[in-house]
Amino acid sequence: MTKYVHGYSEREALRLAEQADTLEELLHYDTIYPPGAKVLEAGCGIGAQTVILAKKNPRAEITSIDVSLDSLEKARENVKRNSIENVRFLQADIFYLPFEEESFDHVFVCFVLEHLQNPSEALTRLKKVLKPGGTITVIEGDHGSCYFYPEGEEALAAWNCLIRVQAVMRGNSLIGRQLYPLLLGSGFSEVKVEPRMVYVDSSKPELVDGFILKTIIPMVEGVKKQALETQMIKEETWNKGIAELHETARPTGTFCYTFFKGRAGK
Amino acid sequence: MTKYVHGYSEREALRLAEQADTLEELLHYDTIYPPGAKVLEAGCGIGAQTVILAKKNPRAEITSIDVSLDSLEKARENVKRNSIENVRFLQADIFYLPFEEESFDHVFVCFVLEHLQNPSEALTRLKKVLKPGGTITVIEGDHGSCYFYPEGEEALAAWNCLIRVQAVMRGNSLIGRQLYPLLLGSGFSEVKVEPRMVYVDSSKPELVDGFILKTIIPMVEGVKKQALETQMIKEETWNKGIAELHETARPTGTFCYTFFKGRAGK
Repeated sequence: MTKYVHGYSEREALRLAEQADTLEELLHYDTIYPPGAKVLEAGCGIGAQTVILAKKNPRAEITSIDVSLDSLEKARENVKRNSIENVRFLQADIFYLPFEEESFDHVFVCFVLEHLQNPSEALTRLKKVLKPGGTITVIEGDHGSCYFYPEGEEALAAWNCLIRVQAVMRGNSLIGRQLYPLLLGSGFSEVKVEPRMVYVDSSKPELVDGFILKTIIPMVEGVKKQALETQMIKEETWNKGIAELHETARPTGTFCYTFFKGRAGK
Repeated sequence: MTKYVHGYSEREALRLAEQADTLEELLHYDTIYPPGAKVLEAGCGIGAQTVILAKKNPRAEITSIDVSLDSLEKARENVKRNSIENVRFLQADIFYLPFEEESFDHVFVCFVLEHLQNPSEALTRLKKVLKPGGTITVIEGDHGSCYFYPEGEEALAAWNCLIRVQAVMRGNSLIGRQLYPLLLGSGFSEVKVEPRMVYVDSSKPELVDGFILKTIIPMVEGVKKQALETQMIKEETWNKGIAELHETARPTGTFCYTFFKGRAGK
């Protein structure tokens, strides 16, 4: 498993929670499973999506796994704080799943494949533990889908550091556009992928705050250390880039980013 | 007025008609005006959008203007061929409108601002001929919103030629993301901008054909001459780029492009 590009800091935990709150409706309005369904959440991290998944599906039986014990600890607290009782946690690796074949009705994977060296292999493994007639849901971002106004040269340079740091760590932050061929290539059927675009201008102050200022800019800032240490960018350029990104949050600015949600059957 | 970047060839006329057919629902499902409304279409070109506008609003009184007599001629034929009778054509420049102030209920502008050196000034002029309480609708693309899979280096280079040729001709093919500040800055009120994203994968054969193969690739090929003559790109790179763009139309390919539709009041 690739080391998680965004790190495991407190600020990162906050960012993930903020992100989940802001994007909840856009990404999850249709993440609905029937009562009693056995759902595997693969790569739950600190539980930001787990909470949404469980609240939206209070009568589903959710099993959430992650490789990181630290993250699982936070996920447990997160779930407890929200008085959720239909989730069990398990430390496990997607590539070595400790489940019998065909043991889940549905599999749910959110913001995980982008961090894996071999997402196709991960999907194949997940398919094995899925019952025939079951579904897989995959949600991923695509950093190449991002553009904004004004679009300063340094802001673009800082943004590209995010893509490159992830590439250095063998992840793929451009994976959203690739969901369709990935799911198809892993043998799933009835593959359907939808873009879920976030468009922000100053008529939507909650997205200016929740998405640009509290999700996107902190995410970029999260790779500052790696970007500077590996000399991808000069500190002066970096600082100017971050300042320019803040301009997109002004009344004359706009910001676009697209997530992709894929669903397929077995 | 800037010279029209795509030229005025027969193939271009076909491309515009194809584009309009494919994107009609996405862009125009809500382009609806009340019976009797006086609508100004500014920059009608060969009438590709005029036909849609008139068909969707058979009881509106549409005035369509363009600077090019040649284009107007084709627009007239286009409208006649479709048995449309609620459109009158006029040769006129957006920057020197031959209308009294406040003479239209609605103004409609589609794929025009991107070709102008001063889109903000154009909006201000259009605002003058709009009645108080009237609306303006503006639809534009954004070439920076385009990404695809697989994303070959040469395909990106060819695509960037399209952006650069338009920039050389003093247009702005990245204008979609800018609609909100442009409309706001020109004094319109209640500005609302929505992205209209086209996502294509092989589960949508009609978009693979109508959008990737018949709209996007011909549009890129339309700047080949200028790109090669101004030595933006080598012919070998160009040809490889076009071949790579065709790969996005295969079963394993995907393609994304976003239009923006803005509406505002006076």
